[in-house]
Amino acid sequence: MLAGRWSTRAFDRAHVLTDDAIGRLLEAARWAPSAGNSQPWRIGVARRGTAEFDALTAALAPGNAVWASAASALVLVAAQHVGDDGSVRQWADYDAGQAAAHLSVQAEAEGLAVHQMGGFDADRVGAAFALPDGVRPLVVMAIGRRDPHAELPEPFAARETAPRTRLTLDEIMLAPALDILPLSA
Amino acid sequence: MLAGRWSTRAFDRAHVLTDDAIGRLLEAARWAPSAGNSQPWRIGVARRGTAEFDALTAALAPGNAVWASAASALVLVAAQHVGDDGSVRQWADYDAGQAAAHLSVQAEAEGLAVHQMGGFDADRVGAAFALPDGVRPLVVMAIGRRDPHAELPEPFAARETAPRTRLTLDEIMLAPALDILPLSA
Repeated sequence: MLAGRWSTRAFDRAHVLTDDAIGRLLEAARWAPSAGNSQPWRIGVARRGTAEFDALTAALAPGNAVWASAASALVLVAAQHVGDDGSVRQWADYDAGQAAAHLSVQAEAEGLAVHQMGGFDADRVGAAFALPDGVRPLVVMAIGRRDPHAELPEPFAARETAPRTRLTLDEIMLAPALDILPLSA
Repeated sequence: MLAGRWSTRAFDRAHVLTDDAIGRLLEAARWAPSAGNSQPWRIGVARRGTAEFDALTAALAPGNAVWASAASALVLVAAQHVGDDGSVRQWADYDAGQAAAHLSVQAEAEGLAVHQMGGFDADRVGAAFALPDGVRPLVVMAIGRRDPHAELPEPFAARETAPRTRLTLDEIMLAPALDILPLSA
């Protein structure tokens, strides 16, 4: 399932995300692990047809808005970098990434598709939600059902059938160092 | 599966991670999504019984080393924050968190347990691997098979049976703002 995941741009404009489906996606994010169980993720959900959805769409980079406007929901993933006790959360972004991944794995398991976007106007995205102090928008996710027959303008249609590429394992693996520190150091 | 995940401290000291199992965990991480497909994650694997494993164990906070030394492998998750072309990767931590989550979901699906740790000496952890320029250690994961009968000293034994807690959905949800920006803004 993880190997077959696809960040589609071809969403079904007729598909509606039910409350139950949204609830399951949020539960998946909620139970993600985090540093000291700090749970720094903050999540905003905007269903297609709402003012928040339109505001998020308008805040996206134009190349994203073209296809993301057909998604069933746009979901803002944000992170609170300072705890209520003033502690700095060094792993806030990392943990928000974990929660987002748990959400997207749940989506995949339900036959939904997720496409995450970093290209947006953070101020305008933030204005769509009442962000508490110190909460920073990280990603807007388009979530919906993939429609392989959806009409997409170029260059997006071509991307939809482009092969997925990744670095090789050799390229992401860290090699053991030759000079391991003595254990007593 | 996501809701039942448990960051155990009770690892089976006799369990050995096969090459195939490690390969599947790494593949899961490798196929995670990332900003512009930048794939900033870098991963180091140290199996129990190796010099790298001992060096990582010695670099952990003492409260982690006690139980993590029984894991089948310690895995360093690091992130490269600057691309080879000099571009700053704003989502490096976020994306590394996604890759780590994909790895841990795969582990869970295989009946393995993962416990991520942020408490370690980054210099000493870095020294166990030949880290390329600009690659920063984020997390050390203990990976292995859970042994509910493993003997754990306190306070770790008590934590193993403590209830999992999370913020409520209300606490992590962002409320829609009352003053949505006009779409033409």
